[in-house]
Amino acid sequence: MKKINNKQTLSENFIIDNYLKKLNFRKKESFNFENDGAYLNVARDKKIVVSNDTIVEGVDFFSSDSANSIAHKIICYNLSDISSMGAVPYCFNLSLGLPKSINKKWLHAFSLKILKLQKKYKFFLLGGDIAQTKNIVISATFFGKINNGKIIRRDGAKINDDIWITGNLGNSFAGLMFRKKILKGNNTLKKNFIKKYLYPIPCMIGSKLRLLANSAIDISDGFYGDLEKLLHFKDLGASIDMESMPILPKLKKFIRLHRINVNKLLSAGDDYEILFTSNPKKRNLINALSEKNKIKITKIGTVINKKGIYIDGEILNLKKKSFQYRF
Amino acid sequence: MKKINNKQTLSENFIIDNYLKKLNFRKKESFNFENDGAYLNVARDKKIVVSNDTIVEGVDFFSSDSANSIAHKIICYNLSDISSMGAVPYCFNLSLGLPKSINKKWLHAFSLKILKLQKKYKFFLLGGDIAQTKNIVISATFFGKINNGKIIRRDGAKINDDIWITGNLGNSFAGLMFRKKILKGNNTLKKNFIKKYLYPIPCMIGSKLRLLANSAIDISDGFYGDLEKLLHFKDLGASIDMESMPILPKLKKFIRLHRINVNKLLSAGDDYEILFTSNPKKRNLINALSEKNKIKITKIGTVINKKGIYIDGEILNLKKKSFQYRF
Repeated sequence: MKKINNKQTLSENFIIDNYLKKLNFRKKESFNFENDGAYLNVARDKKIVVSNDTIVEGVDFFSSDSANSIAHKIICYNLSDISSMGAVPYCFNLSLGLPKSINKKWLHAFSLKILKLQKKYKFFLLGGDIAQTKNIVISATFFGKINNGKIIRRDGAKINDDIWITGNLGNSFAGLMFRKKILKGNNTLKKNFIKKYLYPIPCMIGSKLRLLANSAIDISDGFYGDLEKLLHFKDLGASIDMESMPILPKLKKFIRLHRINVNKLLSAGDDYEILFTSNPKKRNLINALSEKNKIKITKIGTVINKKGIYIDGEILNLKKKSFQYRF
Repeated sequence: MKKINNKQTLSENFIIDNYLKKLNFRKKESFNFENDGAYLNVARDKKIVVSNDTIVEGVDFFSSDSANSIAHKIICYNLSDISSMGAVPYCFNLSLGLPKSINKKWLHAFSLKILKLQKKYKFFLLGGDIAQTKNIVISATFFGKINNGKIIRRDGAKINDDIWITGNLGNSFAGLMFRKKILKGNNTLKKNFIKKYLYPIPCMIGSKLRLLANSAIDISDGFYGDLEKLLHFKDLGASIDMESMPILPKLKKFIRLHRINVNKLLSAGDDYEILFTSNPKKRNLINALSEKNKIKITKIGTVINKKGIYIDGEILNLKKKSFQYRF
């Protein structure tokens, strides 16, 4: 890196050369960022899935959050979408809207975190652009690859399908409550939940669910709302067994103590687990997959031929089932 | 459209259903926007090129500019990139960062303008997302298709190549000067130039240049800077004949009158014409292409084996050759 400390020198080219070029892994398709464009090299038997997520300062993260956490979120929100379609990550396009106040330390931490995630989840930066904005606004378009063309669809749920969830729900919501100082608690508990909020881990089991799931979605806006999105296509509903819901015992205890309704937790977002439905005949295969990959997968209910979400037999009357922007 | 006038009802879903769904042309690949993702259907003999452009309120357009002009810019900036690579438009992903103040009238005009451009240039909306931002920040990722795999590269210029430009330069810059009220002039002239700034027309001849051009770039940041981007790969230079530069006589007269240095005009952006180099043997073919398609294509110089841009034999000493963000 050139040793220039003058703030003026943070030109687009400087940012590209010093922080972003390391992320293209010298792939030909990126033209080494010497072009406004790039191309996708698609093998004959593969489909390319595309996802897009934008995160905004003050909405998806706090102004005081670290570059580390911001980088983590823009990548993992998208990886979760790619996984839920049954694809594996391939590459991504990054649109960076940065305020004038941005500095080298921030850019260094941000790009290093992305590099780490690229190595972990195996994908590269294909291209993108840089713009000057008032607040940080980062948009990423992700590309995933699928072998032999089968994408897990959202609209494939069938009556009597089992409903499954990976991992645990609500930890990120609890983290947000702590982060906003609405909740207070002991240090370890607080630290763990805040970590889950700042660094959500996407469940990358999607590509292995392709032949098992009839439909899938990643839980990003809130469990109830995302479940509805999965079922509304054919006016189906869900019968949910609340007892089986994967919520950590310590979180259950905690919300009871603080008199937080469990439905609040189940209509908040940022879980980045996968919600899917599948034929009951696949139960053993799913349990075996769970064990082999050491990923918790819990059966929480059944798809029913009646609109609505039924919790232990009673219909859920909840106005706000997930997060949505309102203008 | 549902008749709801309450401002509260402009949810993400409302915007998608009422303004964006008409843009997907019911293409299967978009999953009718009922999924966070989409997929690209790639035929065996085609390559997909990808471009990305972001426009920001207060930078790429004025806060008082119409939704019409904003829609036009985000589409045409990207179409220009797609064309310069020799591709034809296929589809695009749209990331809409909108302030809370956005209303139905704006959304209606914005989406209608995009629809018109989609019909004209033949592409559809594949997917995207909506976020809430302080100012308008719109990012689009465009996909173009190329037959038989040949992309026009940026780094393909050869010594003794002719240098060509489509259309005319500087009109958009003059429009910006009028828009900023730095320049004043007669009504027709002013109107035409402002129109070129608000509604730049991308030159879509790119796909027909694939077998003629050795290298190409679209002029978006400023002619001199973009020419340098084309030549720096092998430390080449350019000998430019200023007399041949395609600047409208009325604009030439106008800048002389207002004592504006022509270099200011040639280092400003937003022309969206294509700058390309090709073997002198292709001259007749290029002139025939120009005539057949009724697109002005002007030979303005030659690629030389010496770094730098030489205007009528003298090296150009200009610090700022094009627009770049600085942080």
